Amino acid sequence: MFHNDGFRTLDRQECLRLLAKVPVGRIVYTRQALPAVLPVNFSLDADSSVVLRTSARSELVRAVDGVVVAFEVDEFDASTRSGWSVVVTGRAMVVTDPAQHERLLRTGPRSWAVASDGVFVRIESELVTGREIVGAEDAVGGSASR
Amino acid sequence: MFHNDGFRTLDRQECLRLLAKVPVGRIVYTRQALPAVLPVNFSLDADSSVVLRTSARSELVRAVDGVVVAFEVDEFDASTRSGWSVVVTGRAMVVTDPAQHERLLRTGPRSWAVASDGVFVRIESELVTGREIVGAEDAVGGSASR
Repeated sequence: MFHNDGFRTLDRQECLRLLAKVPVGRIVYTRQALPAVLPVNFSLDADSSVVLRTSARSELVRAVDGVVVAFEVDEFDASTRSGWSVVVTGRAMVVTDPAQHERLLRTGPRSWAVASDGVFVRIESELVTGREIVGAEDAVGGSASR
Repeated sequence: MFHNDGFRTLDRQECLRLLAKVPVGRIVYTRQALPAVLPVNFSLDADSSVVLRTSARSELVRAVDGVVVAFEVDEFDASTRSGWSVVVTGRAMVVTDPAQHERLLRTGPRSWAVASDGVFVRIESELVTGREIVGAEDAVGGSASR
C-alpha cells in the first residue's frame, strides 16, 4: 500500500525477491551494550533464512549466536530519490549440524575475506519487513527515515 | 594497516571523507528491545556530526532522542569483491535550538519523503571506525563480516 509519506509497504514475497537480488547486507546486533552493524555478503537459503559466513573466532559469532538480530539490505538511487529496503529480524544461530555445514559449503555464500576456520551463521526470517520510496518530490520535511 | 583477513583499517580522516561521499546511510538503534535499522539520507555537519531529518512524530525520534546509536555507510562492488564501510557511534539528539534548526533548514539534508513537521536529528561522531576490503581472493573461509 502507499502512504502519504511517499513510502510503499512491501509484502513478504516482494521482500524475499529483493533480498535475493543483492550480494551484501548488514547484520545489526548489540556489542558491549552498544548498537553494532557489520556489512557481510550472504545467501538466501531454501527456507528463506539468511546465511552468512564468518570466522569461528570472530567477535561477531560470540555476539550473535543464539540472539535475535536484524539483517538489512537496500538499494537507493539518489538522482531519482527512490529505492527500497528490506529488514529480516530473527534469531541467529551458528550452523553446527555437519550435514547442513557440508551442504552450505557447496550452496552457501562464498567468502570475500580469508579465514581458515569459517562457520556458517543462519538468521531465521521470522519477521520480514520492507518498504519502497518512489521518487518523492523535493519536500520541506520528512526523510527516508520515516 | 592491513590484516591477514583482507581488511584494511581506515583512520578517522579516511572515514569522514568516505562518509561525505554517500547520500544514504543506516541508523541502527533498539526498538522494543530488538535491534532495528532504518536507511536515511543524511548530511555531514561542520563538526563531523551526522544530520538527518525525520518527522517529529516518527517512531524513530521517540526511539533515538538522547540515545547512543550507530550510523553505517558503505559501498561494495561484488564483481571485484571490494568495498568499504564506515560506522559512526554516538548520541543522537533532536535539534531543538531554533538558530541551529534554521541553519540546518538551509544547509542540512533535503528530505526524500514528505512531512510537514520535520525535525533534525544530530548524531555526534564520538566513535568513527571503518575498514576496506581490497578484492580478497576467492577463499574457503571468512567473510565480509570478519
